[in-house]
Amino acid sequence: MDKPSGEYPFKQKHLLGLTDYSADDIRYVLEQAKYFREILDRPVPKVPTLRDKTIVNLFYENSTRTRLSFELAQKRMGADVVNFSTSSSSTKKGESLKDTIRNISSMKIDMVVVRHESPGVPHFLTKCVDAAILNAGDGAHEHPTQALLDMFTMQTIHPDLTGKKIAIIGDIAHSRVVRSNIIGLKKLGADVVLCGPKTLMPVFVKDMGVEVSYDLEEALAWCDIAMALRIQLERQESGTEFFPSTREYHERFGIKLSHLEKYPEFKIMHPGPVNRGVEMESEVADSDRAVILDQVTNGVAVRMAILYLLSGGNRV
Amino acid sequence: MDKPSGEYPFKQKHLLGLTDYSADDIRYVLEQAKYFREILDRPVPKVPTLRDKTIVNLFYENSTRTRLSFELAQKRMGADVVNFSTSSSSTKKGESLKDTIRNISSMKIDMVVVRHESPGVPHFLTKCVDAAILNAGDGAHEHPTQALLDMFTMQTIHPDLTGKKIAIIGDIAHSRVVRSNIIGLKKLGADVVLCGPKTLMPVFVKDMGVEVSYDLEEALAWCDIAMALRIQLERQESGTEFFPSTREYHERFGIKLSHLEKYPEFKIMHPGPVNRGVEMESEVADSDRAVILDQVTNGVAVRMAILYLLSGGNRV
Amino acid sequence: MDKPSGEYPFKQKHLLGLTDYSADDIRYVLEQAKYFREILDRPVPKVPTLRDKTIVNLFYENSTRTRLSFELAQKRMGADVVNFSTSSSSTKKGESLKDTIRNISSMKIDMVVVRHESPGVPHFLTKCVDAAILNAGDGAHEHPTQALLDMFTMQTIHPDLTGKKIAIIGDIAHSRVVRSNIIGLKKLGADVVLCGPKTLMPVFVKDMGVEVSYDLEEALAWCDIAMALRIQLERQESGTEFFPSTREYHERFGIKLSHLEKYPEFKIMHPGPVNRGVEMESEVADSDRAVILDQVTNGVAVRMAILYLLSGGNRV
Repeated sequence: MDKPSGEYPFKQKHLLGLTDYSADDIRYVLEQAKYFREILDRPVPKVPTLRDKTIVNLFYENSTRTRLSFELAQKRMGADVVNFSTSSSSTKKGESLKDTIRNISSMKIDMVVVRHESPGVPHFLTKCVDAAILNAGDGAHEHPTQALLDMFTMQTIHPDLTGKKIAIIGDIAHSRVVRSNIIGLKKLGADVVLCGPKTLMPVFVKDMGVEVSYDLEEALAWCDIAMALRIQLERQESGTEFFPSTREYHERFGIKLSHLEKYPEFKIMHPGPVNRGVEMESEVADSDRAVILDQVTNGVAVRMAILYLLSGGNRV
Repeated sequence: MDKPSGEYPFKQKHLLGLTDYSADDIRYVLEQAKYFREILDRPVPKVPTLRDKTIVNLFYENSTRTRLSFELAQKRMGADVVNFSTSSSSTKKGESLKDTIRNISSMKIDMVVVRHESPGVPHFLTKCVDAAILNAGDGAHEHPTQALLDMFTMQTIHPDLTGKKIAIIGDIAHSRVVRSNIIGLKKLGADVVLCGPKTLMPVFVKDMGVEVSYDLEEALAWCDIAMALRIQLERQESGTEFFPSTREYHERFGIKLSHLEKYPEFKIMHPGPVNRGVEMESEVADSDRAVILDQVTNGVAVRMAILYLLSGGNRV
Repeated sequence: MDKPSGEYPFKQKHLLGLTDYSADDIRYVLEQAKYFREILDRPVPKVPTLRDKTIVNLFYENSTRTRLSFELAQKRMGADVVNFSTSSSSTKKGESLKDTIRNISSMKIDMVVVRHESPGVPHFLTKCVDAAILNAGDGAHEHPTQALLDMFTMQTIHPDLTGKKIAIIGDIAHSRVVRSNIIGLKKLGADVVLCGPKTLMPVFVKDMGVEVSYDLEEALAWCDIAMALRIQLERQESGTEFFPSTREYHERFGIKLSHLEKYPEFKIMHPGPVNRGVEMESEVADSDRAVILDQVTNGVAVRMAILYLLSGGNRV
């Protein structure tokens, strides 16, 4: 497979969220990712594409998996990588954040991958520096590379997502994944239903043009792909009135082997790590209906693609 | 010196412990390590052997020295290296550990170096993923690269260890080094005596075919090489009945300058870091009878050799 | 621009502080740094100068910015880099520090960049190992690469510092920067005035041949360059009698827009990060009179230069 010829005029300089990306932008990134996904299956899964680039991974929140995926993508493309992990507490004020990023940028950095608990931080950084900014999660706002890898994985099942039925199940309100997914999936023409307890359903869904179901059976009977979201157990354990108990949650919204038999078509996704016995039965996670580990592999490929594009590899 | 021609059919895929390695396997690894030990003395101590490999160092316990030695070995062989340090607490359950390793493996990793407080974790990981697993210490079970570097260092003193007398002195019960050393040394035909306070002598020694002495003088008069183990001072300070005081320990089991004069032959090893004035007098550690720093250098070479072999460099 | 021809007999093996460097040594490092500063402006700011070297960054104190600058300098020169961060508490005793560094050195390291809270640690390390030692800050003693980057930045404003007037303003007593700056600036023939509250003026200034002023207006009226030092807010907040309040400090020693109008010549430096509204008004930090971000960029170039020289690049 050859690298896509790049005739599409991809003009994005940053990846702040999928809100700013057109359907064609998204399709183009996913098309590029196919090339990098093939590279990952080669005996030597490396390309020297970013050999001349320096990237800082600026993580204000702990995120081993996303950080690891980005770091592997970067190193396999030959970039020089510097990790900068810190707690948000030491940089609470906007001014301080601005000074930090401008300092880092003054060291002649090409790209900054940033995770921060506050929505809007990646956007703010684009105002401060020239480097390309990649959002690796800004609070519950957007987490675009996760949504891109989810859509990439869906396309391996259904190459054209137009009219495909996607059920997103679980703690919608606190997910950092769901917003980007809804935005991207709707741009690609998919139908999205959110399914979960009322107490975990956010107000914003009314404005996003998606359907809501409070009945797991209904959602599974309907969907082509069921994406379960991770329940934050630490929140459950605090036992507020807004959260059902773990057992109660699993009872009502956990995907079970019996569902796989009853509805033999839908595939299962999860951003990981799965709470086995909560979001789904352990056997469901390990079944051949689940593509959860494919999502992880695809995540590296999708991140290679977006790093490649934002590094100017295909700038028109 | 040329790289060994590799006619020996080395068939190991992992390094979980020396239990699974035959005497010939061990000799072969140590022979390969000579080649890498020479490379370390070159002006440019690098070889591109692992240029195409990606390695994750997965450390669930803090271990600066072992991690640093592995990381240097990997980088000098050109591997892409990603560090993943975490506390065991966040991954207490087996399921979670399994999901973590399968996730990492889904990112297309070639080798995983793992340290974990629980015996058997490296073995468990081989059931979960395809990557080569190297045990960098699993509780008090095995720490095979440490034993290999110890045996390599012994062979620089006595090229054939058959019938050579090795005294291992100190806190046998809590050592993560001693089991792998006993297993390996016996396979190479050495005679092993364990020496230390009764309260620090574990039950398992009876099953391992080694002699025990509670008299330091007796052990030093007998041995060709005395390997002192590190006393865990934090355990001493808790002052249980099982532990002698530091002063008392040094009195009865510390190696002193007077011993060097009285028994002019034996060499001194220690896995480091030495508690000077406890396991031995400070002057003993700095004397030309001690090869403690050689052990550190040899550790990098031995780790380069095993990484080379397990990467398929010599797979038959 | 060509790399300087290297006819000057630079004979330093370490960079412990500027005390040991002659004026010609300093000028030579700064001259070399110009070459690396130009490289940073190239599309690919990399040179393979340290491709064969292994460097350990040994940080006993947290120091994100200095560590990041060193790591970028090292990686852009192709060195293999290993980071070793630890707290001083685990290595309180000199013996332990000696054993740590000798262990690291036994792994065949070419250079060690060290930061430690105790003055003299870098010097002590040179007694223990053969590797080149670079001081990245030893308590309030010296921080020579910071002083070199400050002087480099000053030379971009005034190529010859002879007779130039430098005011250093703020918490002189607790600064890890000021000693190295005074030593270096005097060797290059600059005139230095220290300005700050009496309670933050150390005893040692009397021995260093510099003038002292307790009047900010007087200092700003006099100087060509004003270098404000960072106030340690955590110390302020403890509210001892030795420290003015933050507001009081800003009132008396903060640089304000009104100063820029009144004294239209002087440039403003700061080692960062600026406490906006304390050492200076926010608008002052962002004005075109401030070269604070240039200092950051220059820091990478200066560190590249000194790493190059101490790696033997130009050894006579």
